[in-house]
Amino acid sequence: MKFIKLLFWVMIMFITTASFSQHKYAMAIHGGAGNITPQNVSPEMQEKYKAKLKEALLAGEEVLKNNGDALDAVTAAIMVMENSPLFNAGKGAVFTAEGTNEMDASIMDGKNLKAGAVAGVQTIKNPILGARAVMEQSPHVLLSGNGADAFAKEKELDIVDPSYFFTQSRWDSYQRVKKKMEQGDKHGTVGCVALDEHGNLAAGTSTGGMTMKMHGRIGDSPIIGAGTYADNNTCAVSCTGHGEYFIRYAVAYDISALMKYKNLSLQEATHQVIMKKLKDAGGDGGVIAVDHKGNISMVFNTTGMFRGTISNGRKPEVYIY
Amino acid sequence: MKFIKLLFWVMIMFITTASFSQHKYAMAIHGGAGNITPQNVSPEMQEKYKAKLKEALLAGEEVLKNNGDALDAVTAAIMVMENSPLFNAGKGAVFTAEGTNEMDASIMDGKNLKAGAVAGVQTIKNPILGARAVMEQSPHVLLSGNGADAFAKEKELDIVDPSYFFTQSRWDSYQRVKKKMEQGDKHGTVGCVALDEHGNLAAGTSTGGMTMKMHGRIGDSPIIGAGTYADNNTCAVSCTGHGEYFIRYAVAYDISALMKYKNLSLQEATHQVIMKKLKDAGGDGGVIAVDHKGNISMVFNTTGMFRGTISNGRKPEVYIY
Repeated sequence: MKFIKLLFWVMIMFITTASFSQHKYAMAIHGGAGNITPQNVSPEMQEKYKAKLKEALLAGEEVLKNNGDALDAVTAAIMVMENSPLFNAGKGAVFTAEGTNEMDASIMDGKNLKAGAVAGVQTIKNPILGARAVMEQSPHVLLSGNGADAFAKEKELDIVDPSYFFTQSRWDSYQRVKKKMEQGDKHGTVGCVALDEHGNLAAGTSTGGMTMKMHGRIGDSPIIGAGTYADNNTCAVSCTGHGEYFIRYAVAYDISALMKYKNLSLQEATHQVIMKKLKDAGGDGGVIAVDHKGNISMVFNTTGMFRGTISNGRKPEVYIY
Repeated sequence: MKFIKLLFWVMIMFITTASFSQHKYAMAIHGGAGNITPQNVSPEMQEKYKAKLKEALLAGEEVLKNNGDALDAVTAAIMVMENSPLFNAGKGAVFTAEGTNEMDASIMDGKNLKAGAVAGVQTIKNPILGARAVMEQSPHVLLSGNGADAFAKEKELDIVDPSYFFTQSRWDSYQRVKKKMEQGDKHGTVGCVALDEHGNLAAGTSTGGMTMKMHGRIGDSPIIGAGTYADNNTCAVSCTGHGEYFIRYAVAYDISALMKYKNLSLQEATHQVIMKKLKDAGGDGGVIAVDHKGNISMVFNTTGMFRGTISNGRKPEVYIY
């Protein structure tokens, strides 16, 4: 009887230890928030978006499940979305008022608060790699314009002719918006946040900005603290929406600050910022975030946000509304 | 006896009411923090700096004592410093690695969290006016490069030939730094924070960046949340120093967040961020801040920071070390 009791306790201890030592990974991505409804996204397009989001999640998971770094997972997932014409980032970037494509991207490492970003670049095939090169190979955090393009070329990143970023659908949308002089399309930014098995957090964001934005306009995506933030002590955040509001409210850093200073949970912090502060101010958009325990939060005050999650032992899940 | 008692209480009430209804204004400015010592700033130059700081303080006070807006006071004080070759902003901007002058500036209104900024501009005589035009006359918060220059021209700001920003001393410094390939000069950014008699806070920052910075490099000065922040509920902040650290630590917003979320005083919040977080991380620099009660804090972890304060009933005070 005594032996059985002992065996029982040994088993309990084993299970407890095993569950503690089982390192966790978790990841979330977004492909933009905005006026996305079943009326303006056809069932066929919905399937295309969902398939591409899954592909991005699996590309990130490939890194994470092989004990890789959150930073590499974020990079891999964002590259998949940048290479697709579906999203307003990389290949599918929208047009500025002058009919050019100017892209922004940023990335941050929660382990050491290192960060890099590019703004207004026109020739870097994958702007997220430009951001990463700034972080890892320059003394700076943010490079803009042709200085950033030149830096990326010097660092031997994939450089393309600006015509690579031409897509017929974005051009048609630009022509429509131009004719009506209406407010440009705001959604389509992509982003990724990840927790790796080492307990490190990372976040990245990439965008073509608003259709018809003024030449030289920089939104929140390349601004560390506004569109992107990561700190191993709190969370990793990537934003999408009306960038000017996200800058003024320092949204990504604010979510981290609410956790650090007010002990809010990730869920509480993201809700307070997106559903209260931003919504009250009239700032449309959403956020994806993961904390150091692997909790994921995806919150938006618009009708839809392309998004998805993946974590150990779970299949990728993708949503639009 | 009863009458005397009554008179006494009426007087007490009068004094109390008067002191409550006496609206307060307060302002602080900086002209950059860094390796500033009596050894590397001659007594003659010290006097020049002090005189110009006083002139800037008085220009701002002229607005504040006439019941003007904090935003106008900040603009006026910064313009004085931008027009002087002494500071690394406007006229006295340092040179980039390519031998050009690229300036950044930002401004924020604590009343409504509206903000504007320009980055990498080369022809706007007073970059702080460019930032203000972005805030007041565009739907954006941050414009960069020649898009920002073109916008300023369209809004009929004073446009100058890039040669206006040539100063012999900055050119000599550029040549020295280039020859030695040493780390560029980091100090000289200017900034101002103000509380007006209406209880509104505003902050602004203007800079030429680092000597020998890479073309396209954007520091913290035009980044709302990093180099500049203002919120009537907490404080107004302007930063100067090694910009990359100020971005990664979201310094200006963090000071506001510590007051809002942890109820720290302005003094405690600025000290915690500059003397602890930033110093531990190796980030050189300083900050000036004023809260909604008119308290002023000026903190730096370097050997010196050009700075000064003014408030009702007090003469301007300026300091270097």
